[in-house]
Amino acid sequence: MSPFRRSLGEAAGTAALLVAVVGSGIAAEQLSPTDTGLALLENAAATGVALFVIILLLLPSTGAHINPAVTVASWLGGRMRADEALAYLVAQFSGGVVGTIVANLMFDLPWMELATTARSGSHLVFAEVVATVGLLAIVFVLADRGQLDRIPMTVGVYIAGAYFFTSSTSFANPAVTVARMFSDTFSGIDPSDVAWFVAAQLAVAVAFGLGLRRRRSVRD
Amino acid sequence: MSPFRRSLGEAAGTAALLVAVVGSGIAAEQLSPTDTGLALLENAAATGVALFVIILLLLPSTGAHINPAVTVASWLGGRMRADEALAYLVAQFSGGVVGTIVANLMFDLPWMELATTARSGSHLVFAEVVATVGLLAIVFVLADRGQLDRIPMTVGVYIAGAYFFTSSTSFANPAVTVARMFSDTFSGIDPSDVAWFVAAQLAVAVAFGLGLRRRRSVRD
Amino acid sequence: MSPFRRSLGEAAGTAALLVAVVGSGIAAEQLSPTDTGLALLENAAATGVALFVIILLLLPSTGAHINPAVTVASWLGGRMRADEALAYLVAQFSGGVVGTIVANLMFDLPWMELATTARSGSHLVFAEVVATVGLLAIVFVLADRGQLDRIPMTVGVYIAGAYFFTSSTSFANPAVTVARMFSDTFSGIDPSDVAWFVAAQLAVAVAFGLGLRRRRSVRD
Amino acid sequence: MSPFRRSLGEAAGTAALLVAVVGSGIAAEQLSPTDTGLALLENAAATGVALFVIILLLLPSTGAHINPAVTVASWLGGRMRADEALAYLVAQFSGGVVGTIVANLMFDLPWMELATTARSGSHLVFAEVVATVGLLAIVFVLADRGQLDRIPMTVGVYIAGAYFFTSSTSFANPAVTVARMFSDTFSGIDPSDVAWFVAAQLAVAVAFGLGLRRRRSVRD
Repeated sequence: MSPFRRSLGEAAGTAALLVAVVGSGIAAEQLSPTDTGLALLENAAATGVALFVIILLLLPSTGAHINPAVTVASWLGGRMRADEALAYLVAQFSGGVVGTIVANLMFDLPWMELATTARSGSHLVFAEVVATVGLLAIVFVLADRGQLDRIPMTVGVYIAGAYFFTSSTSFANPAVTVARMFSDTFSGIDPSDVAWFVAAQLAVAVAFGLGLRRRRSVRD
Repeated sequence: MSPFRRSLGEAAGTAALLVAVVGSGIAAEQLSPTDTGLALLENAAATGVALFVIILLLLPSTGAHINPAVTVASWLGGRMRADEALAYLVAQFSGGVVGTIVANLMFDLPWMELATTARSGSHLVFAEVVATVGLLAIVFVLADRGQLDRIPMTVGVYIAGAYFFTSSTSFANPAVTVARMFSDTFSGIDPSDVAWFVAAQLAVAVAFGLGLRRRRSVRD
Repeated sequence: MSPFRRSLGEAAGTAALLVAVVGSGIAAEQLSPTDTGLALLENAAATGVALFVIILLLLPSTGAHINPAVTVASWLGGRMRADEALAYLVAQFSGGVVGTIVANLMFDLPWMELATTARSGSHLVFAEVVATVGLLAIVFVLADRGQLDRIPMTVGVYIAGAYFFTSSTSFANPAVTVARMFSDTFSGIDPSDVAWFVAAQLAVAVAFGLGLRRRRSVRD
Repeated sequence: MSPFRRSLGEAAGTAALLVAVVGSGIAAEQLSPTDTGLALLENAAATGVALFVIILLLLPSTGAHINPAVTVASWLGGRMRADEALAYLVAQFSGGVVGTIVANLMFDLPWMELATTARSGSHLVFAEVVATVGLLAIVFVLADRGQLDRIPMTVGVYIAGAYFFTSSTSFANPAVTVARMFSDTFSGIDPSDVAWFVAAQLAVAVAFGLGLRRRRSVRD
């Protein structure tokens, strides 16, 4: 598959992920208005399902990053070229926004709105560090062990679980974080809180990337 | 297996699917009357389970379409003959209605009633397009990759998730849509809204079928 | 493994199943008192898990029947000797009662009480027929196809789903039905309703057994 | 991998488990305050996910005990040396406490508090015996049968289910029990109740260990 088509695949996959995250958030909020935990359970289950399906379908063609943290770590770890990584990042961020728009339209809401859900506090930033460490550990341990076929389900259930066991509900993905600014619904995040979330996620990605590179030089 | 027995299998599988969809909808509505999201969660989980089990059992004998959208796309894509496709369609639509009747009887309701649940609006039709695109992408990507054994679980969890992340609760199946007219309960659909749902589902099926055919001619 | 030890295995497995069914019913009723659907969801999930685990562990040694309907169909289908079948039945019915007692004791209830939950009506008996047909179809189709390793998860999720899509909440097992008389809690069944449930389950088992035997003679 | 790194792995794994158990308990209690069953369902699902992921990642390097009951049974059964077992136990107990602290900090709570949730009564101690018997049966049956790849999911769903079908919500792990003293939240346990829980868990571990040793001598 050509690099351009691989990037298209990443865009489509990230869009599909946001359709599921934002769409199920809207449905959950409307259908389960009295218990936030129940709404989050519905949101988490739909998100986990989407991750499982999208990663399963994309893995053989694009590697199924659908997450700039994975792409940055792969690039720094010497597993993909800089120009390919850049194309993936552009695809993921734009695909994510398209996905949010699709979700808004499906639920008859304004096609784009800025979210007003505050998600601030250093403990939430710490939670994003924890969530992203877990996600990248899963991805790179399984990949290095050759257990690629285990990745779709493991990532899907991990994120669904992390919606509950982290205080930030585990965004763990800069493209998802940015895209969730554009729907003022259950899964939204106030734009002023995005920078810290993304910084935490990318810091973990950089650390993983450097670790992977060091391991590679040690082996050489 | 003879073509006739294969069609019988499709009828039985679609009937079983409707038993699960309509039956669990009735139970969910009765048992969880105060939270629609919770009722939908119960309905979605039972639907996903039914899809998993039915597709697992039928796959080796009939291909486990149990969905006219899959059959139409397969026929247009040159993967099955027109007469076989027609027999499948008849089996799916009649099997679906039988399944609804069985569900009604199991729950001591009139054996057949017209549903009164309005499901109208262009955003719901758009959601059916999204839902059906996802379903057919899963089915044909996995089939073309030779990962048939992944289809039962992937379709099952996909539809369960899509109950939440699409505004239409993801019918994505003309035989299911038609059959759900005949129970005036949680999963029902007012007959006047059926045409648009089925049109959206079949439009996607036609697009997929033509795409499959074009790919085939390119390869030849 | 000796026939005696295999019967012991069936007793232990059926006991474990009842611990899970009755125990999670008690917990669900106490913890989710305001929504029966939610309590049933908790009960169904725990039951599905127990079936998965028990069948996975017992399959290589006893065949993991833990259900007189499976044993009767296997015997009539010529797949096990009458004396072995009888030993299995005794083990299943006694193991089931022991499991209910363990559940009662774990939750600090009288070790044995007669249930008072009425479950009567011909529609419930019809539902037991539907539920048992589904269960035996799964077991014997997968077994005959050599997909034994698929049975634990498929049976587990099927019964969990069938708790919702059948009006009887899918007992589908004479040993479970009898044992559930002895705890006056969420999963209980009034002794006067047991005969019809068991009759429906055994009628389906006999039909499957005769069908298996006929298929075998046709092949010979 | 060196023994020291294996112990580090056990510490990290047990810490991650407590992050999930305590963290999702805090989230569940805050988000679903009106229905304890629903909160427990959220807590159970996140715990099951964590066990699946952690065991999957650690199995090839440390054996993924993350539970002193497993380590004690392995040591008594002659499957690991006493000094290695001791290192594992130290790692598990300290890792568990670190995990609880991480969870407390993620949710902006005091980094350490003594729990005040009473969990007393002989029926709860009996439930811990039942829960631990089930857990160790799964681990050692699957290990002895060479089905190591089945352990992550089986243990994960078993504990999630056992949260409901045992009256004690199935701690079944001395390191988890001790660590849960240090967060006064949903999953907490009053320090005065810890001894009985741990005694029940270790009694089962000793019984399993001696059983494994006896089987080994019989084979020799």
